[in-house]
Amino acid sequence: MTSRDGFQWTADTGLKAGVPSIGVISPPSNLASTDQPYDVIVVGGGYSGLTALRDATVAGLRVLLVEARDRIGGRSWSSNIGGYPFEMGGTWVHWGQPHIWREISRYQMRNELEMSFDFSRGVNHFQLRTNEGESIMTHEEEDALLAGALERFVNVDGDMGRKIMPYAHDTFHVAEARQYDNMSVQDRLKELSRSLSPNERASLESFLLLCSCGTLETTSFLEFLHWWALCGYTYRGCLDYLITYKFKGGQSSFAIKFFQEALSTGNLSYAFNSPVQTIRDDGKKVTLTTRSGREFTGSRLISTIPLNVLNSVTFDPPLDAQRMVAANIGHVNQCVKVHAEISNKDMRSWTGISYPFNKLTYAIGDGTTPAGNTHIVCFGGYFNHIQPEENVNETKKAVETLAPGNMDIERLVFHNWSKDEFAKGAWFFSPPRLLTTSLEALRTRQGNILFANSDWAVGWRSFIDGAIEEGTRAAMTVKEELGPQNSIRSHL
Amino acid sequence: MTSRDGFQWTADTGLKAGVPSIGVISPPSNLASTDQPYDVIVVGGGYSGLTALRDATVAGLRVLLVEARDRIGGRSWSSNIGGYPFEMGGTWVHWGQPHIWREISRYQMRNELEMSFDFSRGVNHFQLRTNEGESIMTHEEEDALLAGALERFVNVDGDMGRKIMPYAHDTFHVAEARQYDNMSVQDRLKELSRSLSPNERASLESFLLLCSCGTLETTSFLEFLHWWALCGYTYRGCLDYLITYKFKGGQSSFAIKFFQEALSTGNLSYAFNSPVQTIRDDGKKVTLTTRSGREFTGSRLISTIPLNVLNSVTFDPPLDAQRMVAANIGHVNQCVKVHAEISNKDMRSWTGISYPFNKLTYAIGDGTTPAGNTHIVCFGGYFNHIQPEENVNETKKAVETLAPGNMDIERLVFHNWSKDEFAKGAWFFSPPRLLTTSLEALRTRQGNILFANSDWAVGWRSFIDGAIEEGTRAAMTVKEELGPQNSIRSHL
Repeated sequence: MTSRDGFQWTADTGLKAGVPSIGVISPPSNLASTDQPYDVIVVGGGYSGLTALRDATVAGLRVLLVEARDRIGGRSWSSNIGGYPFEMGGTWVHWGQPHIWREISRYQMRNELEMSFDFSRGVNHFQLRTNEGESIMTHEEEDALLAGALERFVNVDGDMGRKIMPYAHDTFHVAEARQYDNMSVQDRLKELSRSLSPNERASLESFLLLCSCGTLETTSFLEFLHWWALCGYTYRGCLDYLITYKFKGGQSSFAIKFFQEALSTGNLSYAFNSPVQTIRDDGKKVTLTTRSGREFTGSRLISTIPLNVLNSVTFDPPLDAQRMVAANIGHVNQCVKVHAEISNKDMRSWTGISYPFNKLTYAIGDGTTPAGNTHIVCFGGYFNHIQPEENVNETKKAVETLAPGNMDIERLVFHNWSKDEFAKGAWFFSPPRLLTTSLEALRTRQGNILFANSDWAVGWRSFIDGAIEEGTRAAMTVKEELGPQNSIRSHL
Repeated sequence: MTSRDGFQWTADTGLKAGVPSIGVISPPSNLASTDQPYDVIVVGGGYSGLTALRDATVAGLRVLLVEARDRIGGRSWSSNIGGYPFEMGGTWVHWGQPHIWREISRYQMRNELEMSFDFSRGVNHFQLRTNEGESIMTHEEEDALLAGALERFVNVDGDMGRKIMPYAHDTFHVAEARQYDNMSVQDRLKELSRSLSPNERASLESFLLLCSCGTLETTSFLEFLHWWALCGYTYRGCLDYLITYKFKGGQSSFAIKFFQEALSTGNLSYAFNSPVQTIRDDGKKVTLTTRSGREFTGSRLISTIPLNVLNSVTFDPPLDAQRMVAANIGHVNQCVKVHAEISNKDMRSWTGISYPFNKLTYAIGDGTTPAGNTHIVCFGGYFNHIQPEENVNETKKAVETLAPGNMDIERLVFHNWSKDEFAKGAWFFSPPRLLTTSLEALRTRQGNILFANSDWAVGWRSFIDGAIEEGTRAAMTVKEELGPQNSIRSHL
């Protein structure tokens, strides 16, 4: 099946919208007229929604999924081109990410992972291009460069951030941590400016922007410290957790398990291609109206609508003031993730940073395609932002600039998350002051409406793990409140 | 409620068997004559069994728990003495342990943790006592000593064990790893003998024995490499994962959540104080007979009987040959864990190793009791083994020897796992060659009987996390095979 989402370019076909994915659901709806009212309506079929509906249906609740897209996965989905998965959004996983690993283990997929990096053959180097010139380094030198810079960057407490954030899943466990949410990473860089070499500075800034995909000024230092804590307070941990282990078959091969399990209970109804217009809670039930005017009612509604588009749906009664403030501020991640298939096999072991002059600043060899070509994944963000489908030549130029002369592009694959009306950005990254002012508000329920999204998870916030954390939380609440014995159905 | 398990000594009361615990279930049975046959019989109410029965009952299956003891928790349970928990077995948890953290998060208990270590006041030192004499060090020096020795110990591949075990939840991902299961940690120590200082050697051996609680000759080097990989390939990770974060209210405050959730479904029957005598699978159903002659039948049976006591139950047909071989070999962990409440408040920030001459070799300040005393937790093992209740003076002497003159003992609390007929040892630790020969066999089902225990988990084997992993796996299987729609009940 082919999704409307995503873009692909080859010399033969030119730019085409839509890419194949095993996350597309067909038929797009299984509604029966007898299904209403539901115990729970879940809005959104990303990992938060998938987890919530899986847990709720297994527990015997009658659930309706309403999804705007033609596919599951939300901001994490894989295209499937000739049997090869290009990850359009969330990609990497790790056994130290508790919620996702529990599911990987439960679905017996722990042996379906592979590593993005393969330094066993080819150029086997790191190419750092800055305003000062170009350096070719070994990967060991790359690690030493970044580790040294990062360790100074995070070491606000003489213990590499461990004292200020001793519980990685509790950002504010130490009250003094709050001060770092008043700082951007740019503010922190200023404190270190004299101690960083030009190469350290360029690679460090590029790494920070790889995490936030915002700008240095709009990236909360606290949230970066949180990522650092999650990664075990080491650079090597950052590599392990953030960019190493991925599904051989792509994220959609994992997401579909949740959907299939829910479906097998007989308790799941679903409607894809159904953007939501209004959500009304009269205190007894929640009524959802789609843009096409279709109405659904349920005892509870779990909204997994991302922060950056929360203000595009009308809630009645309106959303709490602080939640609206947060939604209107939004998170800052405008990631541009471009996959390039190139014929140079030796680039499999290449990594590179081109910063600050390039539109794509951080890239690694990520795989070998069925044609035997090298798959390079490239990242850009709001700093030097491009809309990659608007000018494919500019996008190709940005890929080529990462390693001039070595990027013979045969294919590009990407999703423009900035223009995606159901996401308006990629994974959550907080600007200064958003977490301290709004995290608790975003986590709070409002009447019969629960809000579940990785954007306000407490642990791996921004990650698939955080989405599953949130879906689990929401399902647990509705299960406790409705229970099998309290299901609407059982009273009919 | 007071469990039969465990021992407590004070000067006033002397030695008494049995300690209070919130894991004791009263009444000990809720059986109704109409319950049989069950979809699933779960043997054992440790975390494997609790997870299996929780998941199965939530999914609508009718489950019977048969437990030999008067309490839940198996090898992880906390006494509750004057409102203060002493952990009798499994204790520490971490957010990078995926299965347990998912449950901690799901039960909203992530803010109910605290740290064992508190170096904020008091002696704040590490006391190393060896045959060569005594050294008092800072905790930084302690970390440097152990980290340096451990890094040389595990560095078989020039990359701190990362190359030989790149997937911590897949011990044998790299085939060459198997060779290290032919080695004991003693064999590995011999390779390094010239490079270790006496203090390095004593602290390293003591640390290895803290992990296995066997002897150096009976501790698989491969399994230690597996622990190292799980801990993020660093000594600091070992501290974080193995001995830092614990429940303020004790493990039983967590275990009871699983039991309560299962009970709330209305699908759980249970019988405590019911040791199993025989388990018979006729190919259609499984019949369990207790020592008192009571019979129960179910479509499936999930045995969570630990490895070291698997040969104490009669299976018909008999257990597979390789499983029996493994059960008869057994694991090597004969941990002696003794809690001492001492009046010296300054010892809160103390850690110590007394090795090899002492009966308790590794200890840390673990908390402050309601009386304001210091709680020290002390570990010994099969090396220099004691039965701590047989000669309390010898046990007190072993505590006192850790820090002569500073251990003014007011209370001792412990569980003798070696004499416990339902465990015959503490957490799993593999002797050489057991994993390579038997891990897969132990994980295999036999007809309608599934085997779930942390002893043969793939990830955090030996840990509570591994128990939950295994319970999850077993429940998933019975859910897929029986499903709500295939439940025996729905056919009646």
